[in-house]
Amino acid sequence: AYRMLDKRFTNTSRLMVSSKVWQKTIPTNNCDVLLTFPAKTEDSTLMWLLARLKWRVPEVVVNVRHHSSSGIYGFYMTASYENLLKGADDLAIQKPLKSEYGGGLKEFTFEDQECFAGVEDEKMFLTSQERQSIVHYMINNLRAEEGEELGKLKFLEGQPIVPLLESKNIISQVFPLHNSTDLETLNKTWVQAFDKTQPLDSICEYFGVKIAMYFAYLGHYTISLVFPTVLGILLWILQGNQGFDDFSFVLFAVVNVMWATLFLEHWKRTSAELAYKWGTLDKKDELLEDPRPLFKGDLVKNPVTDQTCFEYPAWKRNLFRYLVTVPVIFICLLVVFVVMLLIFQLQEWINALVLAGRIPGFIKFLPKIMLALSIGVLDDIYKKIAYWLNDQENYRLENTYETSLIIKLVLFQFVNSFLSLFYIAFYLQDMSRLRDQLAAIFITRQIVGNLKEVFMPYFIWKFRLFKVGYKMAGEMSPGSIAREFKEMTEPTKEKVEADSPLLAQKSRTGGFKLLLQYTDTWEDYMEMVIQFGYVTLFSSAFPLAALCAFINNIIEIRSDAFKLCFHHQRPFGKRVGSIGIWQDVMEAMGIIAVIVNCALVGTSGIVPRVAPDMSSSTTILMIIVIEHVILLLKFILANAIPDVPEWVATEKAKLEFKRRTALKVCLSLFFVALADFSKCKN
Amino acid sequence: AYRMLDKRFTNTSRLMVSSKVWQKTIPTNNCDVLLTFPAKTEDSTLMWLLARLKWRVPEVVVNVRHHSSSGIYGFYMTASYENLLKGADDLAIQKPLKSEYGGGLKEFTFEDQECFAGVEDEKMFLTSQERQSIVHYMINNLRAEEGEELGKLKFLEGQPIVPLLESKNIISQVFPLHNSTDLETLNKTWVQAFDKTQPLDSICEYFGVKIAMYFAYLGHYTISLVFPTVLGILLWILQGNQGFDDFSFVLFAVVNVMWATLFLEHWKRTSAELAYKWGTLDKKDELLEDPRPLFKGDLVKNPVTDQTCFEYPAWKRNLFRYLVTVPVIFICLLVVFVVMLLIFQLQEWINALVLAGRIPGFIKFLPKIMLALSIGVLDDIYKKIAYWLNDQENYRLENTYETSLIIKLVLFQFVNSFLSLFYIAFYLQDMSRLRDQLAAIFITRQIVGNLKEVFMPYFIWKFRLFKVGYKMAGEMSPGSIAREFKEMTEPTKEKVEADSPLLAQKSRTGGFKLLLQYTDTWEDYMEMVIQFGYVTLFSSAFPLAALCAFINNIIEIRSDAFKLCFHHQRPFGKRVGSIGIWQDVMEAMGIIAVIVNCALVGTSGIVPRVAPDMSSSTTILMIIVIEHVILLLKFILANAIPDVPEWVATEKAKLEFKRRTALKVCLSLFFVALADFSKCKN
Repeated sequence: AYRMLDKRFTNTSRLMVSSKVWQKTIPTNNCDVLLTFPAKTEDSTLMWLLARLKWRVPEVVVNVRHHSSSGIYGFYMTASYENLLKGADDLAIQKPLKSEYGGGLKEFTFEDQECFAGVEDEKMFLTSQERQSIVHYMINNLRAEEGEELGKLKFLEGQPIVPLLESKNIISQVFPLHNSTDLETLNKTWVQAFDKTQPLDSICEYFGVKIAMYFAYLGHYTISLVFPTVLGILLWILQGNQGFDDFSFVLFAVVNVMWATLFLEHWKRTSAELAYKWGTLDKKDELLEDPRPLFKGDLVKNPVTDQTCFEYPAWKRNLFRYLVTVPVIFICLLVVFVVMLLIFQLQEWINALVLAGRIPGFIKFLPKIMLALSIGVLDDIYKKIAYWLNDQENYRLENTYETSLIIKLVLFQFVNSFLSLFYIAFYLQDMSRLRDQLAAIFITRQIVGNLKEVFMPYFIWKFRLFKVGYKMAGEMSPGSIAREFKEMTEPTKEKVEADSPLLAQKSRTGGFKLLLQYTDTWEDYMEMVIQFGYVTLFSSAFPLAALCAFINNIIEIRSDAFKLCFHHQRPFGKRVGSIGIWQDVMEAMGIIAVIVNCALVGTSGIVPRVAPDMSSSTTILMIIVIEHVILLLKFILANAIPDVPEWVATEKAKLEFKRRTALKVCLSLFFVALADFSKCKN
Repeated sequence: AYRMLDKRFTNTSRLMVSSKVWQKTIPTNNCDVLLTFPAKTEDSTLMWLLARLKWRVPEVVVNVRHHSSSGIYGFYMTASYENLLKGADDLAIQKPLKSEYGGGLKEFTFEDQECFAGVEDEKMFLTSQERQSIVHYMINNLRAEEGEELGKLKFLEGQPIVPLLESKNIISQVFPLHNSTDLETLNKTWVQAFDKTQPLDSICEYFGVKIAMYFAYLGHYTISLVFPTVLGILLWILQGNQGFDDFSFVLFAVVNVMWATLFLEHWKRTSAELAYKWGTLDKKDELLEDPRPLFKGDLVKNPVTDQTCFEYPAWKRNLFRYLVTVPVIFICLLVVFVVMLLIFQLQEWINALVLAGRIPGFIKFLPKIMLALSIGVLDDIYKKIAYWLNDQENYRLENTYETSLIIKLVLFQFVNSFLSLFYIAFYLQDMSRLRDQLAAIFITRQIVGNLKEVFMPYFIWKFRLFKVGYKMAGEMSPGSIAREFKEMTEPTKEKVEADSPLLAQKSRTGGFKLLLQYTDTWEDYMEMVIQFGYVTLFSSAFPLAALCAFINNIIEIRSDAFKLCFHHQRPFGKRVGSIGIWQDVMEAMGIIAVIVNCALVGTSGIVPRVAPDMSSSTTILMIIVIEHVILLLKFILANAIPDVPEWVATEKAKLEFKRRTALKVCLSLFFVALADFSKCKN
């Protein structure tokens, strides 16, 4: 029996290899988007969906395949080149014009396709990411008819079917497939190329603008950190006598705040340049954007496009927001606040007892463990509440939905991350402890977090593979294993025959469940924003903070890249014009930094040391005046620097000018043609 | 001799009447824009300009007329209906579409003129204000050729000739003429209609969007003042015991700040609605706008439109701005600050001496007179410096030029208007004196200012007429007076023959020099913004401030209207999308209001009365925390209210959608026509 089990494990490890191979080798020109069902989905469900796909979105080509061991069905979907081009027109994807038509990016139009550079090359014109977005868009366009139902699930007229089935777990996932050639290039030029700048354009091409924007931001932020890093190291080396330390404390506070402002302004400009280059700066009006698939509302005629669509009155959303969301979030934050404060108090009390020798030393760790546990639990609960509230608010656009969710999550993370530091800095007013705490945070939170991000998914993935293999080994008789085996190894041979869907129908699944789903960029951003907070808010107390952040980020860039390329499913490319709400969050952080740094100077005892005769009211008043002056300077600085570089503004104006004149030119051409036509007729 | 003089004066008064008649009776369909030269301009200059006008802007019809008594020549300019329509296309004036084409406003296009409602009616389709803007635009388009010169004045290639001549005083004025019928209607429905709401649409039609926007703002602000007025009266009536007064002080401080925020947000929305209605919400890109005529720079190809135009590098402007403007303005403000403070100190010193009986009482007024004189002198000097600096900064757009100038002037007015109050409130910390001072300011500054605004121009006008008459009477022999007289009274007869320029050439001037030039809306706005400052900054000390402001504004609306209709030349209509920089100035005022009100609560001695045990540091800290919380609330409030009402956003999106689809539709129509054509050919 032992040998049998051993053999089964060997099989499993082979499966592991083959699934990994599979994940990468499915040729992109054959399948753009994969839709999978849970195991044991009934055939009728499959047929129901398949029929609707074939009838209502005939432009999508569906190949059904089955993995008999896991019982998972998959729809492999793609579309013809012509239909993809039409989709590119619908999605207004920007493509370069041929040089004889003036060059530059322009929204792709199917009618004028011959004006676009490279349109003849079916394989290269649209990137794999663009193809996937188009197919995804087509699939989401499969809408229910009146009174339609699947089992107990009833659809409203016009509701998108696939996203709804996905939210009800009738479809387990819809995701695009990785492309192994592109991945290999990215691996060489990006993941493992520590010494080179990031190939942002390739990242954008493969993962879409949103993810490329995140990595651009990460790179920009890391480079910007060089300045406070160098200054921090200098001040750290030179520290010694009290006078110099006081001076460096104030200097660092002021420099930090100004650095944050300049960094954010510079990033805004860089982001505008990138968005222009990637064709997303000039966004559609919000009312013209497609709503989130899960957006609910009454069916009305869209006042803009005259198509029927859902509408949800703003007052309902606002009512919910101000009467439910705001109080609930406030109470939640209050609970977190109180729980954390109580544990801090407990810690102080126990520390005092330990110091007095009345209880053993190890009890000191009890509150720490309590804190870690309670934060973990509270975080889970809070996240559930936040998601639920956000769903109830029923935002029309993906973008506003995400913004609103991020604001909720940021509030929690802010309390969670900074409360202990505020407690030490302003309640205990213990600067050296603040420094120790910051150092500890940077070492644990940042480095451990980084390792976790890379290795945890790796282990989870291994574990899942192991589970699949074990389950398979347990459920199947030796004979079936052999058959299964044949099936598992077949695909490598079938690659040649991949074009005949019927032949390949019963294979070619495997890996798609094994990679983790990528939950969008916001967790990565959150980490960076909190880190940005540590650096700007408290680094006057701990000048090496920027250095720690800098080292962390150099690793972070590559580990995030590695994670995205090899441990997660490929995400759908999203088109964004900026990093959105994160810019605002960081700007808010910049303002808080001014207040906190001034308060730190106030509590640090520097003023009494420098000017012992000053009364405490005068000291406070002086610091307040300085705070207001710095805020004013910050404001003037932010306004004096244009958000969009001049050359981008010029390019935008050009585009606008072209669009405005194009219509006039076109109209006169039309009239000329008409005149010729009538002349010719007579 | 006495009788002779008397007779001459009688003549003069007749002239007055006739000039007034003239001002109004020149028919608009005959003359849109009047261009006048200084007396004794040489004929060669006239011919030089006339020739260039006729050759280079043939669309402008010029009638030359001469007023022999004053020696003033005038060019009366208009254009044919067809050319006006072409100009409306160039200026992208928004006009309503016929209902069969979907209705709504659209930029006028000459090719599709038949799609616009009322285009058949030559007299009514374009308003007199639009005609004038178009003719003005045509005149400004008269550009110099290479090496051209007039006397000593040399032109650069492409420089607009008329504005340059105007700035060199070779042309004295270019201005549109009033229309007496429209003015009469406006007088009935607006100037004298105290009981009705302002006819904003008619104002917009007659004076253009910019002036209509000012009056809309003024009306909106006045109505908004009702709330603090009522609250102020209530608190004023109920005042009595110290406890209630303290309560009402704090209440009024908080309410004021919140009221200011809500008022500004509401105005932003109202302004967006009006701008939408008047077709200016959707503005052209800045780079597509025409530069100011006086903008200088190197001739380059415009990167956007590919036409040659001037360019002035931004770094040059910024260099000047940061190295010259900022320090100069700072020094100027410092001088004003120091001078005022010194006079305040002197006042205190003299007051003390008078109180001690050591010098006579009337000397108390000496510092007051000094203050008034020095402010007057400083104001004049500062204005000259500000204008000079602003001209040197050489802004490309009228809009940015004005914004930059206003910021400079606001800074001075802020110091000038509020320093004495700050001095009393925070240096002397005398609340009852602050109240007296505020009351005095409202009575003198507001009411006297109002009277001045109406009666001063009236007297200046009378005086000028008198001067003209006197000069005429003095210079001319009795015989020439009679001849002159004949000429002066002729025009009334000539009205019928107005169409024959040669016949009417030697008459029809007269009044055009006598009305004051309207120097744009900024003086009126300045007054309102300073008043808004008094109300929001200090009215917790003087609750009746809002009442005073309210009464003042009710008069202000009508007196401004009167001034504009009857004492000033008609200004060219300007198209703006909002009140521009004034919104920002008032928002800055709103933030300052929070700080000042918190500081007032701090210095008023309320906290020690309510909580006598609180230490002064704790009091300050508490107030600071409250200040920050209020600022946060204000910020959240301003962000939670959308700046553009939903229906306007929808309409804008519709327009955008139409523009985006129109091109596609047009292209396919063109291709269909082309296909038909080729079919037909074969």
